Amino acid sequence: MTGPRIDLNADLGESFGSWTLGDDDALLEVITSANVACGFHAGDPTVLRRTCARAAERGVVIGAQVGYRDLAGFGRRFIDVEPHDLTNDVLYQLGALEAFARVAGTQVRYVKPHGALYNAIVHHEAQAEAVADAVRRYDPTLPVLGLPGSVWLAVAGAAGLTTVPEAFADRAYTPEGTLIPRREPDAVLHDPGHVAERTVRIATREEVVSSDGSLVPVRAASVCVHGDSPGAVVMATAVRRGLEEAGVQVLPFVGGGPG
Amino acid sequence: MTGPRIDLNADLGESFGSWTLGDDDALLEVITSANVACGFHAGDPTVLRRTCARAAERGVVIGAQVGYRDLAGFGRRFIDVEPHDLTNDVLYQLGALEAFARVAGTQVRYVKPHGALYNAIVHHEAQAEAVADAVRRYDPTLPVLGLPGSVWLAVAGAAGLTTVPEAFADRAYTPEGTLIPRREPDAVLHDPGHVAERTVRIATREEVVSSDGSLVPVRAASVCVHGDSPGAVVMATAVRRGLEEAGVQVLPFVGGGPG
Amino acid sequence: MTGPRIDLNADLGESFGSWTLGDDDALLEVITSANVACGFHAGDPTVLRRTCARAAERGVVIGAQVGYRDLAGFGRRFIDVEPHDLTNDVLYQLGALEAFARVAGTQVRYVKPHGALYNAIVHHEAQAEAVADAVRRYDPTLPVLGLPGSVWLAVAGAAGLTTVPEAFADRAYTPEGTLIPRREPDAVLHDPGHVAERTVRIATREEVVSSDGSLVPVRAASVCVHGDSPGAVVMATAVRRGLEEAGVQVLPFVGGGPG
Amino acid sequence: MTGPRIDLNADLGESFGSWTLGDDDALLEVITSANVACGFHAGDPTVLRRTCARAAERGVVIGAQVGYRDLAGFGRRFIDVEPHDLTNDVLYQLGALEAFARVAGTQVRYVKPHGALYNAIVHHEAQAEAVADAVRRYDPTLPVLGLPGSVWLAVAGAAGLTTVPEAFADRAYTPEGTLIPRREPDAVLHDPGHVAERTVRIATREEVVSSDGSLVPVRAASVCVHGDSPGAVVMATAVRRGLEEAGVQVLPFVGGGPG
Repeated sequence: MTGPRIDLNADLGESFGSWTLGDDDALLEVITSANVACGFHAGDPTVLRRTCARAAERGVVIGAQVGYRDLAGFGRRFIDVEPHDLTNDVLYQLGALEAFARVAGTQVRYVKPHGALYNAIVHHEAQAEAVADAVRRYDPTLPVLGLPGSVWLAVAGAAGLTTVPEAFADRAYTPEGTLIPRREPDAVLHDPGHVAERTVRIATREEVVSSDGSLVPVRAASVCVHGDSPGAVVMATAVRRGLEEAGVQVLPFVGGGPG
Repeated sequence: MTGPRIDLNADLGESFGSWTLGDDDALLEVITSANVACGFHAGDPTVLRRTCARAAERGVVIGAQVGYRDLAGFGRRFIDVEPHDLTNDVLYQLGALEAFARVAGTQVRYVKPHGALYNAIVHHEAQAEAVADAVRRYDPTLPVLGLPGSVWLAVAGAAGLTTVPEAFADRAYTPEGTLIPRREPDAVLHDPGHVAERTVRIATREEVVSSDGSLVPVRAASVCVHGDSPGAVVMATAVRRGLEEAGVQVLPFVGGGPG
Repeated sequence: MTGPRIDLNADLGESFGSWTLGDDDALLEVITSANVACGFHAGDPTVLRRTCARAAERGVVIGAQVGYRDLAGFGRRFIDVEPHDLTNDVLYQLGALEAFARVAGTQVRYVKPHGALYNAIVHHEAQAEAVADAVRRYDPTLPVLGLPGSVWLAVAGAAGLTTVPEAFADRAYTPEGTLIPRREPDAVLHDPGHVAERTVRIATREEVVSSDGSLVPVRAASVCVHGDSPGAVVMATAVRRGLEEAGVQVLPFVGGGPG
Repeated sequence: MTGPRIDLNADLGESFGSWTLGDDDALLEVITSANVACGFHAGDPTVLRRTCARAAERGVVIGAQVGYRDLAGFGRRFIDVEPHDLTNDVLYQLGALEAFARVAGTQVRYVKPHGALYNAIVHHEAQAEAVADAVRRYDPTLPVLGLPGSVWLAVAGAAGLTTVPEAFADRAYTPEGTLIPRREPDAVLHDPGHVAERTVRIATREEVVSSDGSLVPVRAASVCVHGDSPGAVVMATAVRRGLEEAGVQVLPFVGGGPG
């Protein structure tokens, strides 16, 4: 098959104990890759078990969404962890999630850092190297997801890992091709039709309309959608439908299906 | 080789963050199987990494010492966890430790429950089945260590797991062959020479002198020693020397070495 | 004022980090006493700050909803904590919540154990005494809420504390006056009008219609309502309206208002 | 009394569960102010109870050693907490420790931030203000301990708090009067006699010999000693004896004794 294709990824497994977050079942009907929390920022073992089982049933690929050890902060606060400790925190999370992927008859197929860790390693070289070191030691064939142009993807590539750039369906881009920070107005897009249309353009033409109307190139093998509100699921569904109607195949970026 | 043999196991990896517990390096010179904590009752990721690395270097077999999620209680308090949640807590811990065993070039080779969980499943059938279910789903070839005559070993055996009975070098036994509870006087033995002599008897004759002087049969493929105090390391060393002087081979109960 | 009066209490402050639970704002319009979580089973510091501030604004009395240290289990699993440690866990929680009550211009005015601790000390004498000991040492004038006939209220009374029996608006009672266990069918009532009517009867006649239709005496200074679902808020509101229409004053059981 | 006086402060209560850290009993014979951990970086409730009780028995003043919520990192890693959340984290810790001070018949008499928080607020204005805001709201009469010249003491002073500068007995100073960073050689002094002599000079002449031999002014109402190793207790004892032999009164900086 030679037409355009794209992967859709989203964060799953972020409930904890009696606290529920997100509509994982609805999202699993839409996405092709699930970034499953690993217990450090969210996700207790029973949540991970169920999330991996359901992802496997639906043929959704399981990735490890590794984060800082910070339940109270949901992994959204930078922590100045020593690189060696961060490597080990990531190894611990990879192994823990692997147990549930294994029990579900599959395995962890990629890694995507979460929250403040994701943002930190866009620039923070020592932490980026620490995460890459963990993945390389654990399984050097595991691809990693990240922001195009980030230090993270650069050091991961230098470590011999397969790097997978992702785009954000509902975020505005600067004319330079970077994301407009969340705190600015109009940083986040809310119209499902509009977001779907942008995603189709990313998938088919590798470009996006930036905040000043100019077209900027965006190379992405995966597009991140959100699912932590009813509106978000509606949007994710619109994105998927838009892609399919435009003839874009929505397939895992990891070759060969969920294994 | 046809002479008597025995395994020596001890708890390792029970430090956490800035808090150190036990003299793991000294113990690794003595034991053949290391029950490595998995982070729920003790053991942070950096501790697990180092412990697995050092165990692997010395050819000591790595086992998963799984426990309740209770750092403040060091896993020494019974928690009435739902069996399904307990299964998942054990799976999580198995996977997490496996990552460090893998990075150290080896793997988790057996499972030994810790503390209050160990004690609970001597009788608590639902929790015993929950732990056995976790091991069976994770890897049905993993042997499990436990108290002879316990519900735990019975249900683990019924689940198809290989069960390995263990004896306690420094504990007094009743004439019925059960352990005298710790809270009673003379429950714990303190003389290294005496403890070594008892261990030799267990390894060579499968019997122990009970509290009333009678001999009771004790079948054990492994003997547990302690290492959380300087005196304990002295005792463990005396046990090992006593066994070797008596011609008992001190070898992992897991066949084929550390793999 | 000489007519009938009753207090309405509910659990509040049970969100944690990014996880929201319950509609605290809606409940604060209905209840007169807020059992505020203290961080051990639920409730992070920012949640406690906001909950205490809003309760104080509305004149709702703040009580400490103390529980086991178990975020993953939401305090709903029995933990066999040593009594001395349990006393200290309760003291810690009392002090922590007090800081936020103080900043809100008020203070902690009563204590109600949560979840598995609440259930355990209906029978578990050592843990009941441990909780009572904490309250007595912290402030012997603090009243405690509990189940009529429980060991908890008995030992609290023996320790010199003021004990406040509570009834449950939406629970079925046996002819002996005890609660029908949740796992049985018809243990929980769902019709708001019916629940409101029963609450009025408790407040005005100190009796309830039991499962076999007989009337049993129920002495309660407070009635517990739930608020962790939209339906629950509807029911709590119906209970409050029913009481007011029946001429029952809905007032804090703690004398003199929120202080 | 008109002769020179100085306070000696040290970190206490930093054990947790089964993990012991420091020789608190030995230190309590030496110091006049105890910075007691509050459970976020170290110190479980039973540890806090015992530490407060023993400090009160010996007339040692209790201060709250507040830190980041990070047991695994012992509060030694910077966390980019939102200021509002940090204020509430500090309030929670203040209240929790207060419960044990109260039960010991005394109260929390000052505040000293711990570890990475201490270091962060030397420069980090928003976090410094967040901590000051917590203290001001909790009890504006509580003095705060900190590094002379720090943003922390400046914003605390601006918030109306009493600020208490401290010196470090065993640390080398630059000619500009700042501490030589720990990672540099000779940053930490190890000779008890030498350290005692420097402390006497700080107490009697308000100056210290810097790394180039020049004298630099050091205004300090308290001197911090360490106690987390046997050698450290020896040094703290030498410092105390040196001060007494030089006629310096070793007294709490908080007026009026332990209250």
